[in-house]
Amino acid sequence: MFSATPLFLAGDSLDLPVMRQRVDSVLSAFFREKLTGILGLGLPGEAARVLEEFVTSGGKRLRPLLCGLGWYAATGSPPPEPVIRVAAALELFHSFALIHDDVIDASSTRRGRPTVHVALATRRDRNRGHLDAERAGINAAILVGDLALAWSDELLHAAGLTPPRLAAVLPVLDAMRTELMHGQYLDLTTTGLPGPDVQQALLITHFKTAKYTCERPMHVGAALADDRPALLRELSAYALPLGEAFQLRDDLLGVFGDPSVTGKSCLEDLRAGKNTVLVALALRDAVPGDAAELRSLLGDPGMTEAQAARIREILAACGARHQAEEMIAERHAEALLGLESPASIHPSAVDVLRALAESMTRRFS
Amino acid sequence: MFSATPLFLAGDSLDLPVMRQRVDSVLSAFFREKLTGILGLGLPGEAARVLEEFVTSGGKRLRPLLCGLGWYAATGSPPPEPVIRVAAALELFHSFALIHDDVIDASSTRRGRPTVHVALATRRDRNRGHLDAERAGINAAILVGDLALAWSDELLHAAGLTPPRLAAVLPVLDAMRTELMHGQYLDLTTTGLPGPDVQQALLITHFKTAKYTCERPMHVGAALADDRPALLRELSAYALPLGEAFQLRDDLLGVFGDPSVTGKSCLEDLRAGKNTVLVALALRDAVPGDAAELRSLLGDPGMTEAQAARIREILAACGARHQAEEMIAERHAEALLGLESPASIHPSAVDVLRALAESMTRRFS
Repeated sequence: MFSATPLFLAGDSLDLPVMRQRVDSVLSAFFREKLTGILGLGLPGEAARVLEEFVTSGGKRLRPLLCGLGWYAATGSPPPEPVIRVAAALELFHSFALIHDDVIDASSTRRGRPTVHVALATRRDRNRGHLDAERAGINAAILVGDLALAWSDELLHAAGLTPPRLAAVLPVLDAMRTELMHGQYLDLTTTGLPGPDVQQALLITHFKTAKYTCERPMHVGAALADDRPALLRELSAYALPLGEAFQLRDDLLGVFGDPSVTGKSCLEDLRAGKNTVLVALALRDAVPGDAAELRSLLGDPGMTEAQAARIREILAACGARHQAEEMIAERHAEALLGLESPASIHPSAVDVLRALAESMTRRFS
Repeated sequence: MFSATPLFLAGDSLDLPVMRQRVDSVLSAFFREKLTGILGLGLPGEAARVLEEFVTSGGKRLRPLLCGLGWYAATGSPPPEPVIRVAAALELFHSFALIHDDVIDASSTRRGRPTVHVALATRRDRNRGHLDAERAGINAAILVGDLALAWSDELLHAAGLTPPRLAAVLPVLDAMRTELMHGQYLDLTTTGLPGPDVQQALLITHFKTAKYTCERPMHVGAALADDRPALLRELSAYALPLGEAFQLRDDLLGVFGDPSVTGKSCLEDLRAGKNTVLVALALRDAVPGDAAELRSLLGDPGMTEAQAARIREILAACGARHQAEEMIAERHAEALLGLESPASIHPSAVDVLRALAESMTRRFS
């Protein structure tokens, strides 16, 4: 349910690439320490190794960056080490979400590599046993995902926060987790059953992307600095429309993007029958014949390139593509509006937030 | 990988049935609040309802009780409300573990009812879609398990602990989680491949039962009272051998128990090819012909009652059954040893700890 398109980030005052490197260093050191501990206990290192490989093999690190930006918006200073560690914990949490997501979607590749359950199934081909390798790979991947979640907590709890700061940030993370689960559950129960309900598709986007991916990571970063409800509200006014715009762009790229640029097939979302806003708009607005054709084509795992081209034609002809672009522009403008004369966001952060909004909504990959 | 046999608890000074009721009340109130919130957001209530049904449908509540006993051992007083809430969070965490466990083991019943993934698959039979109902049930159950874990954290964080107490207890819970994951992973990678490695079977028992089920819940309860490493060590000296004995008893009941008393088939563990200490002892000690026969019978999903009877014969003839009983007696004695003249455990707690050790090791169901 999550796509893996890279994100271009413009150069800025905070130096996002440096922050990214710091997050990656924390993750590498954490895995080294964990693996040493595990092998010292006489336990197999497979789960830790597979997880490390997955976490370090790529990804935009969007949530850690937004967490750092939340801190920056609160303070105007680059994030200190404990904030970087919390940001890294968010990435580990996201790895949990992706690993289970790939099991649920039965996805075979992510970030240009085999997904965790596929990689684990391949390793199991060598063993004998009553469970077949595919099933064994899925089972192990469920546990590797659970481990990622447990370790995300561990990294957070050992981030070096004071007890009051830790206690302040935990409810934000709890809200984030529950929101993600609800978004995922709603996504799961409607995937394969796309319909004309634009509001429902927007609700999934709201929970999975606007809140989980954008707003909450920024809230986490801000809550690490101090308790200022007005700042959190200002960050929400920026992050929620931005997150929706980001997801709408993702949906468009998933269907109309250039696979040589996005690195992702343009058939995947259509074959899965994803209940995106784009598809809901089309099922609502297309002429009855086109809507019926769309409905019969979507969600077919054997969909051909020609059938996908026909879907693109319908999505364009009924105005859904155009309307999705307009919704992105509206939300982008709304996100920027709050940055005009912010009362709580630190002035140093305004430029980088503006640049980020640009790169998250106008990207080509 | 977890069995569901009920546990008899002797009457005692702490009044365990009352504690159990208090834990259940916290869980019921939590689910009521959650469901109201979810429906208020326009989200489907299915996941919350299915989870509530699972959590409230039974179970020994062993981990919450041991958590309360950890508090009692530290203070000599009945647990106040925040401790009960943390104990309830442990039960919710255990629900997460059981739901994923049942998916992994492909178990169809637990506590005399359909498992979560089976119940969800049945609901999905009514819908149409490209994923078949069984697969959709598994997918939804993975998310319901994830939700149980997220809510376990939420219940913990909102238990009403002071920030320093919360910060003190989180590392204990983190250790508990990682230990469980390692135990599960080891169990998973060896199930279906039983061998004569008694040490490895004991290692699984150590992580999954001695540490996760017994020691850590007691540590959590004790850490809620104050920071006393000596008390934690004394509790470990009691809980670790007790946990091993409890699991060995479980393994024996799983094969030799009376199904009309245990409420559980005597074929399940054998059909799954569980890598128990009992089986490892037999594969190590049986005469070569019997060991080969055992190996060929174990892990066959189509095993007949006659074949299971033959396995029981071999387990008895080679002395494995007897040796498992001896190991239980040794561990039971070791657990009691630390209660002789405890330096840190509160004197009021000694009797109930002794009674608990009795009921956990000598039970018939």
